[in-house]
Amino acid sequence: MKAFLDKDFLLNTPMAVKLYHEAAESCPIIDYHCHISPQQIFENLRYENITQVWLGGDHYKWRFMRCAGIDEKYITGDASDHDKFIAYATVVGKAIGNPLHHWSHLELRRYFGYEGILNKDTAEEVWNLCNAKLQEENMSVRGLIRQSNVETICTTDDPIDTLEWHQKLAKDSSFKTAVLPAWRPDKAMMLYKPDYVDYIAKLSEVSGVEITGWPELKQALKTRMEYFAQNGCCLSDHGPVRFHFAPADDETINEILQNRLKGQQASPGEQAMFQTAFLLFCAECYRELGWVMQLHYGCLRDNNPRMFEKIGVDTGFDAMGDFDSAAQLSGFMGALEQKDALPKTIIYSLNPHENQVIDVMCGCFQNSEAVSKIQHGSAWWFNDHFQGMTDQLSSLASLGYLAGFVGMLTDSRSFLSYPRHEYFRRILCRLLGQWVEDGFFPEDEERLMEIVRGISYQNAKNYFSFAEKN
Amino acid sequence: MKAFLDKDFLLNTPMAVKLYHEAAESCPIIDYHCHISPQQIFENLRYENITQVWLGGDHYKWRFMRCAGIDEKYITGDASDHDKFIAYATVVGKAIGNPLHHWSHLELRRYFGYEGILNKDTAEEVWNLCNAKLQEENMSVRGLIRQSNVETICTTDDPIDTLEWHQKLAKDSSFKTAVLPAWRPDKAMMLYKPDYVDYIAKLSEVSGVEITGWPELKQALKTRMEYFAQNGCCLSDHGPVRFHFAPADDETINEILQNRLKGQQASPGEQAMFQTAFLLFCAECYRELGWVMQLHYGCLRDNNPRMFEKIGVDTGFDAMGDFDSAAQLSGFMGALEQKDALPKTIIYSLNPHENQVIDVMCGCFQNSEAVSKIQHGSAWWFNDHFQGMTDQLSSLASLGYLAGFVGMLTDSRSFLSYPRHEYFRRILCRLLGQWVEDGFFPEDEERLMEIVRGISYQNAKNYFSFAEKN
Amino acid sequence: MKAFLDKDFLLNTPMAVKLYHEAAESCPIIDYHCHISPQQIFENLRYENITQVWLGGDHYKWRFMRCAGIDEKYITGDASDHDKFIAYATVVGKAIGNPLHHWSHLELRRYFGYEGILNKDTAEEVWNLCNAKLQEENMSVRGLIRQSNVETICTTDDPIDTLEWHQKLAKDSSFKTAVLPAWRPDKAMMLYKPDYVDYIAKLSEVSGVEITGWPELKQALKTRMEYFAQNGCCLSDHGPVRFHFAPADDETINEILQNRLKGQQASPGEQAMFQTAFLLFCAECYRELGWVMQLHYGCLRDNNPRMFEKIGVDTGFDAMGDFDSAAQLSGFMGALEQKDALPKTIIYSLNPHENQVIDVMCGCFQNSEAVSKIQHGSAWWFNDHFQGMTDQLSSLASLGYLAGFVGMLTDSRSFLSYPRHEYFRRILCRLLGQWVEDGFFPEDEERLMEIVRGISYQNAKNYFSFAEKN
Repeated sequence: MKAFLDKDFLLNTPMAVKLYHEAAESCPIIDYHCHISPQQIFENLRYENITQVWLGGDHYKWRFMRCAGIDEKYITGDASDHDKFIAYATVVGKAIGNPLHHWSHLELRRYFGYEGILNKDTAEEVWNLCNAKLQEENMSVRGLIRQSNVETICTTDDPIDTLEWHQKLAKDSSFKTAVLPAWRPDKAMMLYKPDYVDYIAKLSEVSGVEITGWPELKQALKTRMEYFAQNGCCLSDHGPVRFHFAPADDETINEILQNRLKGQQASPGEQAMFQTAFLLFCAECYRELGWVMQLHYGCLRDNNPRMFEKIGVDTGFDAMGDFDSAAQLSGFMGALEQKDALPKTIIYSLNPHENQVIDVMCGCFQNSEAVSKIQHGSAWWFNDHFQGMTDQLSSLASLGYLAGFVGMLTDSRSFLSYPRHEYFRRILCRLLGQWVEDGFFPEDEERLMEIVRGISYQNAKNYFSFAEKN
Repeated sequence: MKAFLDKDFLLNTPMAVKLYHEAAESCPIIDYHCHISPQQIFENLRYENITQVWLGGDHYKWRFMRCAGIDEKYITGDASDHDKFIAYATVVGKAIGNPLHHWSHLELRRYFGYEGILNKDTAEEVWNLCNAKLQEENMSVRGLIRQSNVETICTTDDPIDTLEWHQKLAKDSSFKTAVLPAWRPDKAMMLYKPDYVDYIAKLSEVSGVEITGWPELKQALKTRMEYFAQNGCCLSDHGPVRFHFAPADDETINEILQNRLKGQQASPGEQAMFQTAFLLFCAECYRELGWVMQLHYGCLRDNNPRMFEKIGVDTGFDAMGDFDSAAQLSGFMGALEQKDALPKTIIYSLNPHENQVIDVMCGCFQNSEAVSKIQHGSAWWFNDHFQGMTDQLSSLASLGYLAGFVGMLTDSRSFLSYPRHEYFRRILCRLLGQWVEDGFFPEDEERLMEIVRGISYQNAKNYFSFAEKN
Repeated sequence: MKAFLDKDFLLNTPMAVKLYHEAAESCPIIDYHCHISPQQIFENLRYENITQVWLGGDHYKWRFMRCAGIDEKYITGDASDHDKFIAYATVVGKAIGNPLHHWSHLELRRYFGYEGILNKDTAEEVWNLCNAKLQEENMSVRGLIRQSNVETICTTDDPIDTLEWHQKLAKDSSFKTAVLPAWRPDKAMMLYKPDYVDYIAKLSEVSGVEITGWPELKQALKTRMEYFAQNGCCLSDHGPVRFHFAPADDETINEILQNRLKGQQASPGEQAMFQTAFLLFCAECYRELGWVMQLHYGCLRDNNPRMFEKIGVDTGFDAMGDFDSAAQLSGFMGALEQKDALPKTIIYSLNPHENQVIDVMCGCFQNSEAVSKIQHGSAWWFNDHFQGMTDQLSSLASLGYLAGFVGMLTDSRSFLSYPRHEYFRRILCRLLGQWVEDGFFPEDEERLMEIVRGISYQNAKNYFSFAEKN
């Protein structure tokens, strides 16, 4: 029996152990997709207690606590930080098979040096230990990032963002991690949102382009992309609920937008056309700028209306959709490819049953512009667990070129989440080690280590065009 | 090599063995969803031969025999019981990988004491042995239930049922198992059925409410629900082909129903609206009554028209659908949640690829009214096998709170099917044992046993509000 | 650790080893679905170098090379055969988890006697070794087929084909393998193709029936089917993109066809109706002729428009769809079954998530006309790998009668692809061996060997009605 979460956690063959400890473990982290705050990094935020850093904004944990029957008071309500922590500890102690159980223990070991088990019996001890530890110098936001060997962070930023914190960080030579913006223009695309018109007004102001229709919106976006590019941005991120391909001419799009700006709601068909045009336009710009396009879709948001009214978005009430997307992806990428305008693209679906569809579709648009120019993105959000990651890696290996994969991202709001890269790398080494153990692949250490280092770090380094931080 | 189906069948780690034999095995059974006859229980039916009890109405076995090329004569035709048994034995002997192979042998071992292998060579011996055994006192229906340590049975009952057999059983203190009705009002919902109008006439009669439209139908249902509640019912069951969310106002629903009662067929869109209104209404009633709502969908019934004409429904010609349901479930539960009317709910899809969609959607509607108030139901019907159950448990563990799961049901028409609870518990213990063996979870026997006992018995006991039988 | 690809490759239990070497290995191959050229067999083609035989037309390898970032010049471009081979060797050396890695090494071992590892370091050595070996007598097309112990080959043939090469092969008693035509009338069905009218003109000519409408098309097809039957054909193959069931009367179909023949395009709805009528008509004919119907669907073809213009079809730019098909399959088979006109049928979907849907649907239309009259076809194309085959076999076992499965096909364009049967048989024996090892099935060698021989060879022999070659 393997001990729980020991140094060879998840590494069940000699080759897995070797690959992880000799190739993966020391690779720096490129976290090319996350939701942390550049301001908090610049200001080097500190935490009073473990609840603030662990439970303050982590909707993964909130959702789990609700599943386990915990009262909302101890989740987002007015219970004390202490009582909230005890509530979480109690249920996470029985969270067998849930990734939170692994993540929580990895974080306790890596940042707090706690080697025990968190559950209702140890909750008080862990509370005290963590809070004491948080007073130490290296437990500030920058300290946590430094400890985690993070080379590059890409945050998630709106076209109207000033990027002032990125600029300040760029000038601060005392902090070696590059913190770059990533372009996330969903608010300019989702014209069904109630505050769309207000948003466009702000975008007009920030861009200096008065947006009265589709040509102006494109102009405003272009202006802001250039600004982002000047500030080190080299990738984008789009999160449509459902991936559509409904092409329409510019006049139609202009009309849809103008009507919306007059306060009229677009029909679902018009929304699909607008989304398509928006994404096609962005893709062409990215191609010119040399940016990577991230497409992640399949998320049904804010399903619980009562809780949405109470506590708003990103609070643990999102779900996965079950839309079909093969024909849509084909149409979209085909239209771009036809005019040689398809940028490097990473595709994620929140529904794991699209793994094979995505892997195969990626294979239809590859060429020598990059190794695996079109990537099937890492197992994401609801798939960010042992089975989900194993399935994504296996599917990619069977249907594409695993050795060219750009690997893991955290998609996280927490500065303690870097062990998810460790978790991913261990699962990767386990899978490869098992294949060698089973005689599925030769015991060729050198080549295997090259593959592991590639997926852990080097492929992302090659694929993205990050400027180095001096 | 492990011996076939020995006492540690499916238990491949020391922890699995311990968990099963020390925690799971002795738990009573709560079979909260099945299709057995309360009359046969009250009358304590006996069987002449193994074909009667095994092959008499078991469409799982019939379907399998057809797959193996057996002539219908030996399935539902006029061959002798002896010859039918021999035919089944012959093909089940080669049924490698099919759950019938395991179920059949578990039943032979547990009820008939036969420790050998059933196949064409042993068929005659098993025929004789079983038939002799069936003459023993404890092989009556009540004997079989007693032997199986069944604490509670919920049958499946139509709103027009008199529940006379449940009442008689309730008064019979010699039989300790509680046999409770469960409310299954599909016939009042499926207005596309040819005999819908006749059914409504019967419901009018039984309820004492003349059903001329939607308000009266609701009244009639409410009257019958109260009657069911007085007779110990505390859960319901709905089996729509496809799960819809197509809200409409009461006038529209009334019109659809009135037209149908005049003999007009409803369009598919109208059927979806009617189904939605029907389920919303029921859910609100259940919430008031404290009942649990079971939603199981995704079954395409009666696919073979020639055989349907010949031998009717529930004869082995059903299939699984591949409809999308995420947005529909979200809309339905959201509408109820918005007015604080969402009852405890168990969701099952017949298509296993919805596991993740369901687990994630459940997580959007949890709160402290119950541990895992919204449940992802057990692997059901076509998923009731090693892979199907393992997948359902793994998905639930990764995405929800496995420790809160209410566990297994038989969904069976046979009094010999209780070993499916054993089968489920062994698979559960195998999975948990493997996780401990692999170092994925601490070797914490006490907590693990608590989890196993919960899923085997205690969670269902807590979740449902069954009155104890005196 | 098992050595890579040794004699017990994939066989990880004693029972797996025994089943493979004692039952599976020596079974002849019935390759009932492939795309090789009967002319090349008759003319006994020889190859100058390994690139010609390996990379000449193999779009599986092309697609993989593109994923790995290889320039098109080394794939379908004007690089030398030598340089193309080196390019492939370089990337296949890192193709961990991809079936090409296994297939390539199996082919090198079985046909070229190369026991090493192919990668960039050994590429030159393998190039020389293979090219020398190709000069040997038994490395011609017939030699390769003979070495591979192939009893029967069914090619893929258009209704307008003359079948002259099949006829010549039939008369050539020096070659023992039966090479039979298989009927693939997709070009007569896909009336949306630009060259449809031209095709129908050719079919008119070849059949001697002037096709002016639906009755004449049916007559022409029937005439050609009879011709195919006279030439030994006993199975058909249909590859609709999406499986539809949209029944319409003959007048409607006639009108759709007549309009198309006048140059008008059919609407999507009309195409679905035409496809339905076409497949229903064919199925009825097959039933009369005693042919097997193969339905394989779910392939989105030619997704990359730039490459399609450059190098045309079947070049590695196809993908899998994610359409629903359960209700369509049910309607289609039900309509045939109702008039007792459903032929033996093999169903394949390119999307592996349909495994369960297909297995269950097959079970609704079985009877004693054949063991598993309706078959769930082998894991195909994008699923033809370890995980894909294991999943198909497991699903079939759980939901149907694995012992009645007709087994593997190559679907290949290459004369070196017979080791895919070996690959399949090893995976089958591994799965069965593991089940015995785990105590899931009795250690009953005789019965297991019967099952393995059946799936490897005997079931196909029984299921199809191939005439023996004298």
